[in-house]
Amino acid sequence: MSVLRVAGAQLENAVGDLDGNSRRILDAMAWAEEQEADVLVLPELALTGYPLEDLALRLEFVEATREALERLARASGSTTTVVGTIDVVAPRRSWDTLPRNVAIGAALLSDGEVRGVYHKILLPTYEVFDEARNFAPGDSPGLVWRIGATVAGVSVCEDMWSGDGPPEAQAANGAQVLLVPNASPFHREKPRGRWELAASVARRNGVPVVYVNCVGGQDELVFDGGSLVVDAAGEVLYRARQFETERFCLDLVTGPPRRVDERVRTVHTRVREDRAPLPPPRPAPTADGAEQVWRALVLATRDFARRNGATAAVLGLSGGIDSSVTAAVAAEALGPENVLALSMPAPGTAAEDLAAARRLAENLGIGFETIAMDAVMGPLGGLLAPIIEGRPTGGTRQDLLARMRGAVLLAVSDELGHLALATGNKTELSIGSATLYGDMAGAFAPLKDCPKTLLYRLARYRNTLGSAIQESTLTRTPSALRGEEIALPPYEELDEIVERYVERAEGLDDIVAAGFDPVVVRGVLQLIDDAEPKRRQTPPGVKITARAFGKDRRMPITNAWRPFADESTELAGAAEWSR
Amino acid sequence: MSVLRVAGAQLENAVGDLDGNSRRILDAMAWAEEQEADVLVLPELALTGYPLEDLALRLEFVEATREALERLARASGSTTTVVGTIDVVAPRRSWDTLPRNVAIGAALLSDGEVRGVYHKILLPTYEVFDEARNFAPGDSPGLVWRIGATVAGVSVCEDMWSGDGPPEAQAANGAQVLLVPNASPFHREKPRGRWELAASVARRNGVPVVYVNCVGGQDELVFDGGSLVVDAAGEVLYRARQFETERFCLDLVTGPPRRVDERVRTVHTRVREDRAPLPPPRPAPTADGAEQVWRALVLATRDFARRNGATAAVLGLSGGIDSSVTAAVAAEALGPENVLALSMPAPGTAAEDLAAARRLAENLGIGFETIAMDAVMGPLGGLLAPIIEGRPTGGTRQDLLARMRGAVLLAVSDELGHLALATGNKTELSIGSATLYGDMAGAFAPLKDCPKTLLYRLARYRNTLGSAIQESTLTRTPSALRGEEIALPPYEELDEIVERYVERAEGLDDIVAAGFDPVVVRGVLQLIDDAEPKRRQTPPGVKITARAFGKDRRMPITNAWRPFADESTELAGAAEWSR
Repeated sequence: MSVLRVAGAQLENAVGDLDGNSRRILDAMAWAEEQEADVLVLPELALTGYPLEDLALRLEFVEATREALERLARASGSTTTVVGTIDVVAPRRSWDTLPRNVAIGAALLSDGEVRGVYHKILLPTYEVFDEARNFAPGDSPGLVWRIGATVAGVSVCEDMWSGDGPPEAQAANGAQVLLVPNASPFHREKPRGRWELAASVARRNGVPVVYVNCVGGQDELVFDGGSLVVDAAGEVLYRARQFETERFCLDLVTGPPRRVDERVRTVHTRVREDRAPLPPPRPAPTADGAEQVWRALVLATRDFARRNGATAAVLGLSGGIDSSVTAAVAAEALGPENVLALSMPAPGTAAEDLAAARRLAENLGIGFETIAMDAVMGPLGGLLAPIIEGRPTGGTRQDLLARMRGAVLLAVSDELGHLALATGNKTELSIGSATLYGDMAGAFAPLKDCPKTLLYRLARYRNTLGSAIQESTLTRTPSALRGEEIALPPYEELDEIVERYVERAEGLDDIVAAGFDPVVVRGVLQLIDDAEPKRRQTPPGVKITARAFGKDRRMPITNAWRPFADESTELAGAAEWSR
Repeated sequence: MSVLRVAGAQLENAVGDLDGNSRRILDAMAWAEEQEADVLVLPELALTGYPLEDLALRLEFVEATREALERLARASGSTTTVVGTIDVVAPRRSWDTLPRNVAIGAALLSDGEVRGVYHKILLPTYEVFDEARNFAPGDSPGLVWRIGATVAGVSVCEDMWSGDGPPEAQAANGAQVLLVPNASPFHREKPRGRWELAASVARRNGVPVVYVNCVGGQDELVFDGGSLVVDAAGEVLYRARQFETERFCLDLVTGPPRRVDERVRTVHTRVREDRAPLPPPRPAPTADGAEQVWRALVLATRDFARRNGATAAVLGLSGGIDSSVTAAVAAEALGPENVLALSMPAPGTAAEDLAAARRLAENLGIGFETIAMDAVMGPLGGLLAPIIEGRPTGGTRQDLLARMRGAVLLAVSDELGHLALATGNKTELSIGSATLYGDMAGAFAPLKDCPKTLLYRLARYRNTLGSAIQESTLTRTPSALRGEEIALPPYEELDEIVERYVERAEGLDDIVAAGFDPVVVRGVLQLIDDAEPKRRQTPPGVKITARAFGKDRRMPITNAWRPFADESTELAGAAEWSR
């Protein structure tokens, strides 16, 4: 029985930021030395950021990463640092004919040198992941490393999910502890899954597991940290905070060497026996559903803005639930003084909505300006008249108004340098009722993956932090459902159908078997299929459900497969691609 | 020495169209029987269309495909049909932890039955391809099939590109001919590569190769046919037309059985000796550069429109080269009577451009309407004034005008049901000078992958078919370069830098070494990197170069890697994300 002092740093995930990442890694290394840690575990691709997409194919980037890694190695001391990076390997062809020569690596830095690199074996290529596209798989799953008195296994993220993969090979080769850098994006069911996984890997192999994740928004993903240390029985020894960077350090009791294997790679053989033991750290509390999602939205919006050079944001604020929640997220993400809300009334806009918007802006302390759209809509309608034979009809007029508002929003964004936020939600995007270039105009769409019903829960959660969103916003019928003959089911029902179809990939029969009206289900599923073209032109927005639109669900635009189409089941309110 | 009568049908590629594809396959099967063909080879995934993307994960679709295949099998007779389809296999985990249970198959139908299915081994997962995402790899590369007197190898597309893959294993197992269904998308350098490949596979294995490709536009891809039959020496026996569906039939002389292998699967053992020999067919001529691209654009636009339910298109026509070529493509794709051009002058629009637009519309015989934008721009500027402190400045105003035009275009599209075509080109999209929701507004962007300089070659090619695009359009300085201080290099130079960086993935040093000014190169490359956010919200457009934007080149939006940034090299005319 020996003690391994393990430090973990759930660092910010910043793609391409070799300088900033190096600086943050060096800080963590210096801190871990101060803690007299034996090993410091950092997230997957901590040096380069994750996911790299085709940046991994850029030779200059691969070369610059190698140089940055060498600089980190030179700064390493008696604490062994396990740092995620990319690494050049011998060209290898695997599932196709293209040779890849870059692997995802976990480099072990010690005493001024790179003492070895583990190469990730399993490359996730599903949902949001595309690793088989750009990376060579490693070929040594069972590598283990002597770090002082301990034999450690090192693997990376997906390697751990197999049930019979690198951790199992490493445990069989004598590993007393499993160190696992991760880049595991958030969705609302993910944290629990991670804990169950880490616990089962620990129990199966009879060794503790150190699971370190990164933190931060990257385009459509947000990484939520929540790093974990579990003992050999799968009990949680430590859980890091979610949605915040953090460092932690603890003394991990490992079993006796399980096997003396001459194939173990030696990082170093020094043993420290003079340290005062550390008190066990207190695991951070876990957040509940709405709070977790709220924090995910705030972090994703903040990181998208600042990493794309914006300190402020502008959005259209109608007083409805979508724009109200977007405004509240932006205010928390960027500071209320950095958010400008535009009220853009047109003839027919309800006074109650305008008042709710103004009151919300006051509550949040964000900027608020009114731009009356009347002056533009009149002339525009006139211009169109000769071509479309009469004034634009209901749907066209509504879309035109939404697009004028989008154009105004972007003009303000262009002039002031504010990030334009789109306010559309997942339900609208599912059934195609969001207006392309209208309420979906902007650089980022915070609510893109939030079902409508979740927005009400988010608003109520936000109001527990201080009065913000008006009760009228929470109780009024959404404007999309006012005054028109819409055959759509209520949002509660609609969102469940969307969740079953999109998130859980259930089919028509499954959903009908769950108790829904077949006519409604057919109609909704066909709307979802039909809205694919529109979804392709929407801004990025953060994934918070098990299956988001975007890279998480890639359907052809041109697709003749219409299993749900049936004239008798077509729902009123169905949207054309362009609306 | 024996004779195998091979029929090939390069069918339309229609994703999800199980009914239509089945009908076209049945027609080809009946025709092949009439030809007394021994074997009919169809393209990869002929039954389902290619690429399926995540449609391959939909259980209802997989099930419906199986039923459709069984119907085809029941219709099969003495001609053995090799049809591309998806096929359920035992779940298999390969490069990650997700089991896949659907393979890409080539089913052999004969005498009313499915006599066997080959499963594609190599799954391309690079450039536009994502096959490792959704498919299980096959595990029997060396399968060979007795079809009458001949032993044939069957493999699929990528399987053929390895140099030591399934064709080699099949030849070693006695294959006298290699039958290869393909779904090989066009780019301007592709046809030559295919011929070289087929010839080298034939020569290496000493057997003839039958390479059958599909035809048609599918979102960002266009399949150009150009199927090939080469003899054992790699000489072309037949080449099918490009960009058109076609059937062909020829008598292929195969060598003697190369090996009697009891592992051969028997499709049938009937031998036909009573047929009159067929005269050798004449290979179709190959098109040159501009003509090939022109036909690719026309086919892609036609298929996008009709497969998405549109018979007509609308576009903004300025009289510049971009919109002029787009109009000419649309006129050929949909018929001039089905194209409506909108001239949308604003104060400052050159009379010469308006005249060129009108004349082009007359030449093409397309509809032409004028909508003067003055009436809208005035009031809009006034509305913005209080917020942006004064009237919008040059760039903002230009973008606002472009977005008003985009909104008008979409309103007309909404009302008339015409497909809205965006007119932006690849050069603009590269450096970020296209206006999002403005000249990039639309359902499809035919010229999205066409560099500016290519547009002039396309226009001149088009004019060889009949007078269309005005000489003034071809010789005037493009409006983007008029009257402003733009430090961009001339288009010839700009396009070569873009091609080297984007298509050939050259780095800064390579490009400078080719003789370009380092200051210009750094500036252009940084503009290309900086425009990534904008590219994510553009409509689909057809790939015609070796590397298009879109699924072919996937870069992170949020990316701190700025190797080219340098204040001294920043170019005037650089565009903000939102412009």
